[in-house]
Amino acid sequence: MTAPTQIVILGASGDLTLKKLMPALTRLAAAGRPSDGFHVIGVARRPLTDEAFRAQIRALLPDDLHAAFDAFAPRIGYQAADVSDPVAMKALEARLDALPGGAQAGRLFYLALKPELFGPTVQELSASGLVTMRVGEMPAFRRVVIEKPFGHDLASAKALNSQMHGLLREDQIYRIDHYLGKETVQNLLGFRFHNAIFEPLWNRHHVELVQITVAEDIGVELGRAGYYDTTGALRDMLQNHMLQVLSLVAMEPPVSLDPEAIRDQKVNLLRALHAPDPAEVATNSVRARYVAGQVNGVAVPGYRAEEGVPPRSDTETYVAIRAEIDTWRWHGVPFLLRHGKRLEKRFTEVKVQFRMPPLQLFNRPEGMAPNDFRRALHDGSLCQIRPNVLTLSIQPREAITLAFGVKRPGAEMVMAPAAMAFDYRDAFDAPSAAAYERLLLDAIRGDATLFLRADEIEASWRFADEVLGGWAQGRAPLGEYAAGSWGPEAADDLFHGCEGGWSRG
Amino acid sequence: MTAPTQIVILGASGDLTLKKLMPALTRLAAAGRPSDGFHVIGVARRPLTDEAFRAQIRALLPDDLHAAFDAFAPRIGYQAADVSDPVAMKALEARLDALPGGAQAGRLFYLALKPELFGPTVQELSASGLVTMRVGEMPAFRRVVIEKPFGHDLASAKALNSQMHGLLREDQIYRIDHYLGKETVQNLLGFRFHNAIFEPLWNRHHVELVQITVAEDIGVELGRAGYYDTTGALRDMLQNHMLQVLSLVAMEPPVSLDPEAIRDQKVNLLRALHAPDPAEVATNSVRARYVAGQVNGVAVPGYRAEEGVPPRSDTETYVAIRAEIDTWRWHGVPFLLRHGKRLEKRFTEVKVQFRMPPLQLFNRPEGMAPNDFRRALHDGSLCQIRPNVLTLSIQPREAITLAFGVKRPGAEMVMAPAAMAFDYRDAFDAPSAAAYERLLLDAIRGDATLFLRADEIEASWRFADEVLGGWAQGRAPLGEYAAGSWGPEAADDLFHGCEGGWSRG
Repeated sequence: MTAPTQIVILGASGDLTLKKLMPALTRLAAAGRPSDGFHVIGVARRPLTDEAFRAQIRALLPDDLHAAFDAFAPRIGYQAADVSDPVAMKALEARLDALPGGAQAGRLFYLALKPELFGPTVQELSASGLVTMRVGEMPAFRRVVIEKPFGHDLASAKALNSQMHGLLREDQIYRIDHYLGKETVQNLLGFRFHNAIFEPLWNRHHVELVQITVAEDIGVELGRAGYYDTTGALRDMLQNHMLQVLSLVAMEPPVSLDPEAIRDQKVNLLRALHAPDPAEVATNSVRARYVAGQVNGVAVPGYRAEEGVPPRSDTETYVAIRAEIDTWRWHGVPFLLRHGKRLEKRFTEVKVQFRMPPLQLFNRPEGMAPNDFRRALHDGSLCQIRPNVLTLSIQPREAITLAFGVKRPGAEMVMAPAAMAFDYRDAFDAPSAAAYERLLLDAIRGDATLFLRADEIEASWRFADEVLGGWAQGRAPLGEYAAGSWGPEAADDLFHGCEGGWSRG
Repeated sequence: MTAPTQIVILGASGDLTLKKLMPALTRLAAAGRPSDGFHVIGVARRPLTDEAFRAQIRALLPDDLHAAFDAFAPRIGYQAADVSDPVAMKALEARLDALPGGAQAGRLFYLALKPELFGPTVQELSASGLVTMRVGEMPAFRRVVIEKPFGHDLASAKALNSQMHGLLREDQIYRIDHYLGKETVQNLLGFRFHNAIFEPLWNRHHVELVQITVAEDIGVELGRAGYYDTTGALRDMLQNHMLQVLSLVAMEPPVSLDPEAIRDQKVNLLRALHAPDPAEVATNSVRARYVAGQVNGVAVPGYRAEEGVPPRSDTETYVAIRAEIDTWRWHGVPFLLRHGKRLEKRFTEVKVQFRMPPLQLFNRPEGMAPNDFRRALHDGSLCQIRPNVLTLSIQPREAITLAFGVKRPGAEMVMAPAAMAFDYRDAFDAPSAAAYERLLLDAIRGDATLFLRADEIEASWRFADEVLGGWAQGRAPLGEYAAGSWGPEAADDLFHGCEGGWSRG
């Protein structure tokens, strides 16, 4: 690649473009990445001058980016176009051809659009010839970045994949999941496969339970309620972001860092993920909706009272699932997934609980006979503390914490809980790059590692569909929880015996 | 036990009694441990009143112990006696009989004496009948605590054990190693066997190398030079304290916390410890003596110039050994032991270096072809960083540190070193009890876990004798190192290939 990449953002007037993509692109430009540089053309229907578009962007940037933006602005343009209008598309092509590199430049089409427009827009792009390589244009590229959600269920995701595959090669399609742009999510790979000491423990012999939480304290976002109500917690968060995190936590080691090697293992994992089927959803899934309550001392309305939510909505704002993974590595180890809005606290984390030591030498309760202790541990009537928990905190804290037991100072051999922690922000001066910055750069560079492949998307939807199917049969009635609480009590029952309970971050 | 224990300190006028034992006993008394209390009778040859003895002790106590001591002082007495004088011993017995509990009280005889007096003193104690239980005195006890060094080599240790076993049962003998009184040394057991996540890694499959260091910045202590010169670094530190630490680090799990169960495993380990034999000492051991240098910016004399050291001494003040342990667990894993005086810094630690991950996905040097990388890793021409090291710091810091690799923030998948640490003193309000406090309490309670059994002592001497034998044949010439340095350069050669080098604390 010797010409600056041409980035075409379709949906240039939307919030995603103005609030996420343009700040990320400004930062990339300021950092001189990629070294060949890039131009941006925003595309939307309504007429707007380049200057007005730039002014819109600048007004929303934080002050510390203004200088960087002013240097970058000459490489930003705006083109009014209806993608279904061939004349407009020709004009767009002419504008791109006039940029440095012309048709020899790589072109990235970013679909910052409503999901229902993904299919039609790719169709029009294809018809316009803009995503097709012509003789003499190699080694440039034509790529399409697709925002989430990709489909609404397995059937619609398959239909969309099928439509796209009629128009583009899979390697041209970059399906985004911004969770994969987070440093701490990417570090799951590095942490697992660069350190020889965790992988030997990372299996059914040593792990008792894994819990993954995405807890939000906010309710449904203003202006998003109508969309959210047709989606719900399972589709909005669990099916995509949480299963992505799960697949990185639980996948087999890849043979290399090649994008396909990594994605192959993620797909394998997702395919082995066993969802509660209709017979199991009642005991292995919990869904609920928040009612009025208090968050941080402030009274907030219930979900049904939020602006834009139908008053009789039965959409879930909380989902918890006890799933299993049918692989040699994980068979029998419960994976507990939980996501909810309006919970007490915002945090995202992965918690790996390790088993008790096979022989309990320590901490026999005072006065309990050794044989009674032995029996109580075996029959589960005494839940000894599991001293070893590895917590991978993704947000707001970016940290790794290892809990273990040490001898309590004193004349008795009594063990006490201890922990050590690594904090990403303390350790590295540089703040973590914003997720979109990383993902945009990777899409420009053609590294698809952090984007979802068609089969990955479908494997995720298969899981979600299974649960949704059980719910549709009314097998897991929708519960309620007070806003600002830790969710419905029923979710506690997803933990069995001595397995413990949900993390509170 | 319902009567206060009677503690008889033989050698009551010596430094050990005044500076170590009496402060420890004062603290125990202040803490009300054991709950039945205890009396102390100091015994030495020269006449002294109880009051004068108490005044001696009080003068050497830190101010914050004075109040505690004043409460404790009435339970401290002094008895002038030559143990070889039957009349004096009768008087001692009468004095003990007059204390609360009389002959029904447990009696602990602490030999705070020069090593050459251990045998004769136990002989006299036995002849006096003081260490023999008589009908009607059960369930009291008669125990003898023996200070280090226990023997000077295997033959002398065996002779001393044999002499003692003619006079006492093994369960009456408490051979002290004050290193075992340290919290962080005791925690080695708890850390390994209370946490299920370390034991699976604690073997040849995952551990590349273990190094144990006792580094001192002081030289030979004033007044101790004559003794030290007949002893040397190997006997003074490595044979006892360091092999004790090693045995706790490397032993198999005990079946229980019963003292014999733990000591059985320690003996097993020590017996499996392979010392460099005469054919190996030249390559697997290094010995050296410090010459004049600077410690913390202050000029200090060489060992031969220290007061009390013969000017032609060839005693080692530094020893380093590469040993192996012939068990299924450890076969092929080098254990590097190092002790020296007048090194740059004082610290004691155990460092467990784990192997590289079996597949190196990360950190291929820029510009190196994948196949070249693969070959370089295999043939050892490229030493990749071993990211995983567990450091158990014993002094002056009491801490556990785990080094590992995390993704460096940024757009490339590059791993950077990271660490997390647990600090004992930060975690627990209470300061760690002094080693002697713990050991005295255990001897009173009859818990022999932290004392050395006869077979343990002999197994340690067998190891030391093997090395000393090779040295005596002149196979490892005595080197030199500057005071304040990190010891002789020759010691670096005990590390092979990509194994790294000595810790600097």
